[in-house]
Amino acid sequence: MLNQEACVNSLNFTVPRLGEAKITSPIKMSTKTGDNMANYVRDDEFILYNIDARPGSYTIEYTSQDLLEKAGPREKIFFSPGHVHAGIVTCGGLCPGLNNVIRALVRTLWYSYGIHRISGIRNGYRGFLPQYGIPVMPLDPDIVDDIHTKGGTILGSSRGGADVEAICDSIERMNLNMLFTIGGDGTQHGAFRIAEELERRNQKISIIGIPKTIDNDLSFIQKSFGFETAVSEAVAAVSSAHTEAHDAINGIGLVKVMGRESGFIAAHTALAINDVNFVLIPEIDFDLEGEKGLFAALKRRLELRHHAVILVAEGAGQRYMESEQQRDLSGNRILGDIGFFLKKAIRDYFEKQGMETSIKYIDPSYMIRSAPANPNDSIYCARLGTHAVHAAMSGRTKTLISMVNNTFVHLPIEIAINKRNTVDPEGPLWRDVIGATHQPMLFRND
Amino acid sequence: MLNQEACVNSLNFTVPRLGEAKITSPIKMSTKTGDNMANYVRDDEFILYNIDARPGSYTIEYTSQDLLEKAGPREKIFFSPGHVHAGIVTCGGLCPGLNNVIRALVRTLWYSYGIHRISGIRNGYRGFLPQYGIPVMPLDPDIVDDIHTKGGTILGSSRGGADVEAICDSIERMNLNMLFTIGGDGTQHGAFRIAEELERRNQKISIIGIPKTIDNDLSFIQKSFGFETAVSEAVAAVSSAHTEAHDAINGIGLVKVMGRESGFIAAHTALAINDVNFVLIPEIDFDLEGEKGLFAALKRRLELRHHAVILVAEGAGQRYMESEQQRDLSGNRILGDIGFFLKKAIRDYFEKQGMETSIKYIDPSYMIRSAPANPNDSIYCARLGTHAVHAAMSGRTKTLISMVNNTFVHLPIEIAINKRNTVDPEGPLWRDVIGATHQPMLFRND
Amino acid sequence: MLNQEACVNSLNFTVPRLGEAKITSPIKMSTKTGDNMANYVRDDEFILYNIDARPGSYTIEYTSQDLLEKAGPREKIFFSPGHVHAGIVTCGGLCPGLNNVIRALVRTLWYSYGIHRISGIRNGYRGFLPQYGIPVMPLDPDIVDDIHTKGGTILGSSRGGADVEAICDSIERMNLNMLFTIGGDGTQHGAFRIAEELERRNQKISIIGIPKTIDNDLSFIQKSFGFETAVSEAVAAVSSAHTEAHDAINGIGLVKVMGRESGFIAAHTALAINDVNFVLIPEIDFDLEGEKGLFAALKRRLELRHHAVILVAEGAGQRYMESEQQRDLSGNRILGDIGFFLKKAIRDYFEKQGMETSIKYIDPSYMIRSAPANPNDSIYCARLGTHAVHAAMSGRTKTLISMVNNTFVHLPIEIAINKRNTVDPEGPLWRDVIGATHQPMLFRND
Amino acid sequence: MLNQEACVNSLNFTVPRLGEAKITSPIKMSTKTGDNMANYVRDDEFILYNIDARPGSYTIEYTSQDLLEKAGPREKIFFSPGHVHAGIVTCGGLCPGLNNVIRALVRTLWYSYGIHRISGIRNGYRGFLPQYGIPVMPLDPDIVDDIHTKGGTILGSSRGGADVEAICDSIERMNLNMLFTIGGDGTQHGAFRIAEELERRNQKISIIGIPKTIDNDLSFIQKSFGFETAVSEAVAAVSSAHTEAHDAINGIGLVKVMGRESGFIAAHTALAINDVNFVLIPEIDFDLEGEKGLFAALKRRLELRHHAVILVAEGAGQRYMESEQQRDLSGNRILGDIGFFLKKAIRDYFEKQGMETSIKYIDPSYMIRSAPANPNDSIYCARLGTHAVHAAMSGRTKTLISMVNNTFVHLPIEIAINKRNTVDPEGPLWRDVIGATHQPMLFRND
Repeated sequence: MLNQEACVNSLNFTVPRLGEAKITSPIKMSTKTGDNMANYVRDDEFILYNIDARPGSYTIEYTSQDLLEKAGPREKIFFSPGHVHAGIVTCGGLCPGLNNVIRALVRTLWYSYGIHRISGIRNGYRGFLPQYGIPVMPLDPDIVDDIHTKGGTILGSSRGGADVEAICDSIERMNLNMLFTIGGDGTQHGAFRIAEELERRNQKISIIGIPKTIDNDLSFIQKSFGFETAVSEAVAAVSSAHTEAHDAINGIGLVKVMGRESGFIAAHTALAINDVNFVLIPEIDFDLEGEKGLFAALKRRLELRHHAVILVAEGAGQRYMESEQQRDLSGNRILGDIGFFLKKAIRDYFEKQGMETSIKYIDPSYMIRSAPANPNDSIYCARLGTHAVHAAMSGRTKTLISMVNNTFVHLPIEIAINKRNTVDPEGPLWRDVIGATHQPMLFRND
Repeated sequence: MLNQEACVNSLNFTVPRLGEAKITSPIKMSTKTGDNMANYVRDDEFILYNIDARPGSYTIEYTSQDLLEKAGPREKIFFSPGHVHAGIVTCGGLCPGLNNVIRALVRTLWYSYGIHRISGIRNGYRGFLPQYGIPVMPLDPDIVDDIHTKGGTILGSSRGGADVEAICDSIERMNLNMLFTIGGDGTQHGAFRIAEELERRNQKISIIGIPKTIDNDLSFIQKSFGFETAVSEAVAAVSSAHTEAHDAINGIGLVKVMGRESGFIAAHTALAINDVNFVLIPEIDFDLEGEKGLFAALKRRLELRHHAVILVAEGAGQRYMESEQQRDLSGNRILGDIGFFLKKAIRDYFEKQGMETSIKYIDPSYMIRSAPANPNDSIYCARLGTHAVHAAMSGRTKTLISMVNNTFVHLPIEIAINKRNTVDPEGPLWRDVIGATHQPMLFRND
Repeated sequence: MLNQEACVNSLNFTVPRLGEAKITSPIKMSTKTGDNMANYVRDDEFILYNIDARPGSYTIEYTSQDLLEKAGPREKIFFSPGHVHAGIVTCGGLCPGLNNVIRALVRTLWYSYGIHRISGIRNGYRGFLPQYGIPVMPLDPDIVDDIHTKGGTILGSSRGGADVEAICDSIERMNLNMLFTIGGDGTQHGAFRIAEELERRNQKISIIGIPKTIDNDLSFIQKSFGFETAVSEAVAAVSSAHTEAHDAINGIGLVKVMGRESGFIAAHTALAINDVNFVLIPEIDFDLEGEKGLFAALKRRLELRHHAVILVAEGAGQRYMESEQQRDLSGNRILGDIGFFLKKAIRDYFEKQGMETSIKYIDPSYMIRSAPANPNDSIYCARLGTHAVHAAMSGRTKTLISMVNNTFVHLPIEIAINKRNTVDPEGPLWRDVIGATHQPMLFRND
Repeated sequence: MLNQEACVNSLNFTVPRLGEAKITSPIKMSTKTGDNMANYVRDDEFILYNIDARPGSYTIEYTSQDLLEKAGPREKIFFSPGHVHAGIVTCGGLCPGLNNVIRALVRTLWYSYGIHRISGIRNGYRGFLPQYGIPVMPLDPDIVDDIHTKGGTILGSSRGGADVEAICDSIERMNLNMLFTIGGDGTQHGAFRIAEELERRNQKISIIGIPKTIDNDLSFIQKSFGFETAVSEAVAAVSSAHTEAHDAINGIGLVKVMGRESGFIAAHTALAINDVNFVLIPEIDFDLEGEKGLFAALKRRLELRHHAVILVAEGAGQRYMESEQQRDLSGNRILGDIGFFLKKAIRDYFEKQGMETSIKYIDPSYMIRSAPANPNDSIYCARLGTHAVHAAMSGRTKTLISMVNNTFVHLPIEIAINKRNTVDPEGPLWRDVIGATHQPMLFRND
């Protein structure tokens, strides 16, 4: 299948399992269609990753390594529910929906599989490290009953702390049979190394990741949880910036949103609200000076309409800052603050031009990160958590729960980490952003 | 490709066109990748509809009739922008996002193609009928600037009125070159017949539909616009019902939501909020009486927890009502009011049982229908409208703009009407609803 | 003071006390001004009730019976905190802010006075009745920590149940020293009778009421808690009704809001949103038929503007319904449903007139009642609860906490019950409603 | 009346009038009570300002100068509606409700008095200055129909520009008969000087101010419009800060809100949400260092609970900053940024202490200022605007519309400017804040 080759070949993986699933699931479902009962998912159900196609005649061969395995409850499970002790950990920055995922994990373990030993590891991976002496939080449906109405994570979080040896010691001491790791790229990388170490120790412990990135830039993942909520909150900030800009003399509203390596939040926000005139994202370089640069484009806009809104992703324009390239505890590069930089640079530019302007800078990042999940994200998080439990019970490990082509699938951690989605400057998303903002292409002078 | 056969064959269609597109688009884009400029969409770009796959070796032949054509701006267009007069009409019940679609149509026509003659037909198809004497509303970017912040449609709406002959006369009198029909199944059926009649009259007029159904049950359409907003609003109503039920003595909260033939809103709402105990949808029959019936199940719930929430889709349980099977002006069957019926039937049941209960019934339908689109729906509507304009300009006709597998595609009206999606009682959505509510399967006594 | 006579004389009361307050308060405050420390409230601090005045010369004599006593922490208290057992009960229909009041009571008892025995009586006065066997809910700051983010009451509620003898028996058995009764007119009437009976039994038990009425119609009470939130929610319903009406052919939006004896919610809602054309309230009679009646006025409006919104308080137009004048368990008259009545009557009228209309009826009552308090109501509830605790600790009893002229005061229950505020058809509120809606005065034909 | 002396004497003013009101108002109202028609307000209706009272016998003499004149429609008006040209100007920073006031002014002028020449002066007083060439915006009910749903002001705003001579020239050139000035202290000071100059020129032009201060600190004004909305938005920011603080290791949430000279927003926000531990306001000095200083108190809090929230008003702790005491165009002192200062100072302190903390700083100022008014503020703004028109039509001038003791009154500009309300550290508001936060009194070491 010619047009799918590149992608199909690039998959080439198998979802890792701890062993054969021999135990009959306590969930009552059907194995046949037509009886009006919900069906178990079979191990031979897969979906295509690449859906592009052209007319023509093809001979193709799919191995299971080319296809994505469907997630869902299996008829046969690996763990005996009566003996399971499950752990849950949340790592990294806050993101809408963390509590929803925790809640779905607990409820599915408890109600669907009858597992009553569930431990919340607190403050991220650090909660495993004995030197901090942080007690685990026993979890049950009562404790998690209402947590989805709140932002943040009841388990707390932290960055870094992925001391693999110590964590595995702790997992063994706790007699955990499965660990659900909710976190971003660094967290899942840690989860993979933990799983490898446990394997080396001959421990049959399932490590299932629920990928978290408010930036929505993980590979093989259609949409990260919390992303829609984040866009909603960013829209509110842009709306404020627009009002402030509109009502001032040559008012300039400047909003910085998340997006370290990718501009998905910025691009979607610009599409959701008409009031953005310039979107700056990490994927697309831009000049400040020169006839085609941002400053001149902004000046032309102000001369024409007397107000403007700029939406900048935090990772945009990094070449303009003397970033010392420090890294935080999770190993993420610490970015220079493009928001403050632009605020000052734009003010200086117009002062030099002798043009009165009024610039209002809004950084809604913490208000976005700490928001509770909206209903659509709530549904998504609930289902991610549910599928994660099914995956662990079936004996999958080193696996992420992901949605691809609107289908929940198992994704080996190994193929998903260290790759990022980015906004394609030539693709339909950015095309529609340009159509909505009418911003000049790229602000480049060359 | 064995597992796709059924579906692939069932497509068997070609997207209709008015003629060859020979005019160069005024939109500046690129035809090659790698130049960092957004690309036109080529006429040979397609996607697969069915993504299920199994490992194995296959020989397949895709014709263009088996695949879905990608929507988007073409390098060559059919209409000369300088001469175009475009019409827009909204029909049927309100749905979040109507104004967003109108706004995107107007802005794309105006800014991307330079088309300045745009007429809003008012009050649905009735606005075409001369006997009502309803003047059209001239549309431009200023008029539509803020309309997306409001629910409803600035054009007004109505049911029925699809007098094809008279509408075509009116379209000819107005010299419309293209008509965008925003509406549901009946509306698009009307649009198809209008297009057929115009074809018979040798008029090169493009008819492009933007499918609207708050119930989210149109075939070949991944998600209808406004659906997410509708679920959000329904969640608020269920939350109220839960509070009222929880704080009363044997409180029963009963909420009716839209869903004439399908239970998508009810199912998603139940997944988004934990407080629903019984979900009743049209797809799944249920008994009221008997040991496994709803009443007994409800009684058991009350004895255990002293409060309960029932979420019922308007089309559920119709067999219990002496519906006179009337039809409204759009030809939709008028349903008996299952909400009022259940409220009374439940009250009577518990009175007979001598059990004190307090039942609170909430019908949030109009508050759902009239809500403004949330940010995610706003993005979706904006892009639907934009793609509809590209489709019309390229000379497509009798075509719906749809999203399938997260890709905007052209869908011949003919294959999409008169078919509905429904909640599959054996599929993953309903499975997860059962997992969330723990409701007994089907309430059937047999 | 001539112009204040009527009112001043009508007060003529003294706030009842259980005895002399001799114990020094554990709250550290100051008794002198100028030291930058918060001050205790002295027993000789009063405010005027009537603030109307005219220029002139007056000789007036205020006794403490003519003035309103300021609420707040006293230097000397009646109860020894170490021995106090406090009870809290919520009665009647839900109202935004109940949980906020509970929370403030608990926190002030606990943190300010060190009282750790606090019992929540569940399901209203019924929770006192042994035949129902409802256990009390022990309350502490952890339990109430987050309850203010939710609507309803964690204690549950019920109507009726004021069996004074049995309740007093129960209060004695529990060894309660103080009871906080959160409820409306019937509840406070019950509270008064309970206090009288306890007095007869020589029990030194303080009964402090926090008046609740979503209708905002209690006498001597500037604004009832939850009222602002209720208006906000009603505004949302009217906004929906307006959208539905506007977009239909001769659309009529009809919204029913609370207001059994008074139209405060309806009047404020109409002022908050411009889209109401007719406000119907209990205080002002209206004709349906005849040239000046509602029907004809509505017809004129539709002919002129093609859409209309009617906002009706539940107690309006009761003379049109064959109400059987039943009473609910709290003794409130059960009203005929004016909303359904009007919906049908208006439909019939226009059918007879041969005029096409589309009427959309919204009853948001339960969604209003179950809403969480907005920030302003949260502040108000928090302070009501705090002042109630100070009042009880100081030995006041048979007393309501009220706000008058923006000052928290003690109000003897006796003078406040059985009197209602109503919207004065000649006063400034209704004057401004008429100014906002331009509705014809009174719809009366005479 | 002993206890009212201080205040009564301090009023000693008369509301200025342009001349005798001889024209019969076009508004149909009644002059007698009992006829169920709304009544005009008579010129001899006043209210008391000070409501404190003590029992005793008093001889008092009220002149009209000791009392506050009630606002409202008069039977006799000064201006002939047919000839009136009204101007409206909005000045200074944004505040929720500006558009609501504009809308009420326009609608009352238009519908109640039949005045159809209404000009919006754009960009504050600057709009009067010919050198800027800013055209006025003609206003009518259609233009203002929906503006109240948006934040900001459709007229735009600016700081400064009160060139009295030039403004009066412009007012004369425009033939304005009345000017409504919506703005803060500086704006109303300018309005007063404009009115004085016009008087000197023998121009009978009414200048009516609608006082605006998001800080809620104007004297003789019970509550400024937009304040409640501002508190609601501030609550959202504090809620985010709490979530961020709670979920981090020794997380510190720091939120800065408006409040240049007074801490009303901070105090009310702290009362509305339980999650603030330290409130810093301009009225109360605090130490940073030392055993009782903020740093040590914060450290104790973190050791105990591991998270903390600090809410700081922008004018607090100014002594800690090397403010260069610049002034902006409105003459307001430019404050040093206490938020950034504290963020850095706290970080430095804990680094020196070797204690890991994570500080999250949120500055929601622009999101607060640009928010649309909530329903309660909408009502208030609508009524302020309506009363302002009645005042102007009656011939009042140099007058503010204010609410005192829940009554709309006329307030001479002269007595209201240059005085500010502040939070009384010994009064009930701050007392209840201390009760809610349990913060140590004043953080002072002395």
